[in-house]
Amino acid sequence: MRTERTQVAIVGAGPAGLLLSHLLHRRGITSVVLEIRSRDYVEKRVRAGVLEQGTVDTLIEAGVGERLQREGMPHHGIELRYGGQGHRIAFEKLVPGRCITVYGQQEVVKDLIAARLADAGRIEFEVSDVAVHDVDSPAPSVTYTDSHGRDVRLECDVIAGCDGFHGVTRRSIPEGVLTVYERDYPFAWLGVLARVAPSSQELIYSRTERGFALHSMRTPQISRFYLQVAPDETLEAWPDERIWAELKARLETVEGFTLQTGPILEKGITPMRSFVVEPMQYGRLYLAGDAAHIVPPTGAKGLNLAVADVRVLTNALVSWYRTGSTELLERYSADCLKRVWRAQHFSWWMTTLLHTFDSDDAFGRRLQLSHLDYVTGSEAAATTLAENYVGLPFESALYD
Amino acid sequence: MRTERTQVAIVGAGPAGLLLSHLLHRRGITSVVLEIRSRDYVEKRVRAGVLEQGTVDTLIEAGVGERLQREGMPHHGIELRYGGQGHRIAFEKLVPGRCITVYGQQEVVKDLIAARLADAGRIEFEVSDVAVHDVDSPAPSVTYTDSHGRDVRLECDVIAGCDGFHGVTRRSIPEGVLTVYERDYPFAWLGVLARVAPSSQELIYSRTERGFALHSMRTPQISRFYLQVAPDETLEAWPDERIWAELKARLETVEGFTLQTGPILEKGITPMRSFVVEPMQYGRLYLAGDAAHIVPPTGAKGLNLAVADVRVLTNALVSWYRTGSTELLERYSADCLKRVWRAQHFSWWMTTLLHTFDSDDAFGRRLQLSHLDYVTGSEAAATTLAENYVGLPFESALYD
Repeated sequence: MRTERTQVAIVGAGPAGLLLSHLLHRRGITSVVLEIRSRDYVEKRVRAGVLEQGTVDTLIEAGVGERLQREGMPHHGIELRYGGQGHRIAFEKLVPGRCITVYGQQEVVKDLIAARLADAGRIEFEVSDVAVHDVDSPAPSVTYTDSHGRDVRLECDVIAGCDGFHGVTRRSIPEGVLTVYERDYPFAWLGVLARVAPSSQELIYSRTERGFALHSMRTPQISRFYLQVAPDETLEAWPDERIWAELKARLETVEGFTLQTGPILEKGITPMRSFVVEPMQYGRLYLAGDAAHIVPPTGAKGLNLAVADVRVLTNALVSWYRTGSTELLERYSADCLKRVWRAQHFSWWMTTLLHTFDSDDAFGRRLQLSHLDYVTGSEAAATTLAENYVGLPFESALYD
Repeated sequence: MRTERTQVAIVGAGPAGLLLSHLLHRRGITSVVLEIRSRDYVEKRVRAGVLEQGTVDTLIEAGVGERLQREGMPHHGIELRYGGQGHRIAFEKLVPGRCITVYGQQEVVKDLIAARLADAGRIEFEVSDVAVHDVDSPAPSVTYTDSHGRDVRLECDVIAGCDGFHGVTRRSIPEGVLTVYERDYPFAWLGVLARVAPSSQELIYSRTERGFALHSMRTPQISRFYLQVAPDETLEAWPDERIWAELKARLETVEGFTLQTGPILEKGITPMRSFVVEPMQYGRLYLAGDAAHIVPPTGAKGLNLAVADVRVLTNALVSWYRTGSTELLERYSADCLKRVWRAQHFSWWMTTLLHTFDSDDAFGRRLQLSHLDYVTGSEAAATTLAENYVGLPFESALYD
């Protein structure tokens, strides 16, 4: 087995791991990113696509926002559609100066990979048998088999677990260390990517008695849709014609709106889950992004939370390397979790506001409609949606 | 049987019935109020005590606010207490110019009875066998036995059902006419009235792992407390010492706060229920207040909703008598229900925000704490609490 060394071993080349590697490099800290998938796979993996203001600012400040600024689509509002009417949540009025930018997660990944490679950064794609060792000692390491079949031991100071919900890093933490908080929802999302211009300039969150639907987009030529479906739904049950018929039934609910259709490029089913582990750290292993927490996608918070975690971890590592003080590293989990729980609550709130629940009694359905009337009719209530949706500032007093 | 006649027969001499009679009188419309209890009983019945700005304005405009303005205690904020800290919701900052006034419901009742009697208004106390007839005809009537044992038929144009949740008017509507929306909560409130000065100038809503407690007051000498208890709790289980011990355990959770104790004057257990019937009308019978809807008391909305209903009904009746148009009477239910559902949602929201639920999993408890952090930390979120608590204006766009 070959032995190598870096300062920070990063498991996972998603947005969290790649951004961490890039930010550390800019502060003079070396890292190696290990990824079990191929570069082609991660650059094409369709996931989130709504960037908070703070995420956009972070990427621009980090010098990886050039294409994002050119191709990303700033949105200054979203529409809540229910009861035969559309109601716009106007960011420009409610949270002046803050908006969201539609830019696919895979585009962020492409930009970050390009930046890392341009800086001679090391990303090992298609590795296998990744295992973390001695994280409760001052000399942790990661072993893996590289894409050429060579066994490697990567010695490091710190391991960053950026390998998502199903990754190995969280699962390598001994039983009893982590407290798990989770909730499953009685539905899933059927996600669809289609080659057709968006039928509306902005995202439409539509609540109907048939279930929830979301009209979104990735580019001016590519639309993205989601349909609330049963949790055990299979793709076989959803031929393209049924998808379009259901999308029309759930989105063509206001006068004058016609859903444009086109070839479906991709479809998939995503479970809806809320999940948090505490703490987000064990010894020298720090978890970031989906490895530590999952939100239902309704609030578009998953990718943005990962970026927030990585910012906190970068600052803590820089402080430690520069001063030797472990203060910020020790606070890493607590600092991240304030924002994580805010996003968890918001994501749960958006989900219960917009989905139909089989378990809901008549009272519950009326509460939901009354709640929607309030959110769209009260400036204060609309602002709570808007400020969470565009993302609360990193320095918000809410995180003190 | 003696036959009498009035324009509006009002069943129930609570705040709704008495205020309706008073407002109608001021617009030249005659009414008779029928009440099964004695004057002494209704003037001493301890119920709500938090008046919204709009309720106070209504009473003052109607000329029955003199003592209210003198003795009522305006409050410009409430405290949410949890996690070892108190957080003030500052009305003067969040909803400038609007506040609540602490003034017991029984004081409102006393003032209204005095005003009706001063105007030679007719209130029949201690009646029995109240029954409504022919409400689906143009000639309805109410029969009853008066306090002297005489049987009376009161002919009228319209009947107002202001006789509360357990009253006869709603139950006299034929099966199938009303749709019922309801929810029970897995707890009740133990209410306590004590002769002791309030331990805090403002109301304290305290969320603890032992359950919810509310510190309130009726006068500068009389405090009012509520404890979340099991739904099947009995008063026998709550001797005074246990009440004080539990109040201390749930309220003395911040440094420097000591609960003052004193003789307990009254105690009672109130179930927690959400309840709405739609429509709030059948033929010539119009339901107002608790006869049509019940809210859990957490949001202090019950009395205030009754006042709002009565305002709408007064305007509709005045319009009908003056112009012959039934337009406003036909809209009565729809006009009231917008505010009713807003209050239902708010009351449910305050209740779930502050109570402990046995059914809550660890995720649910964290969501609740995150939600509290948000409500107390975000100005927009605090404003949603404040604007609902002081009461949305009657002419709010939310009720269009």
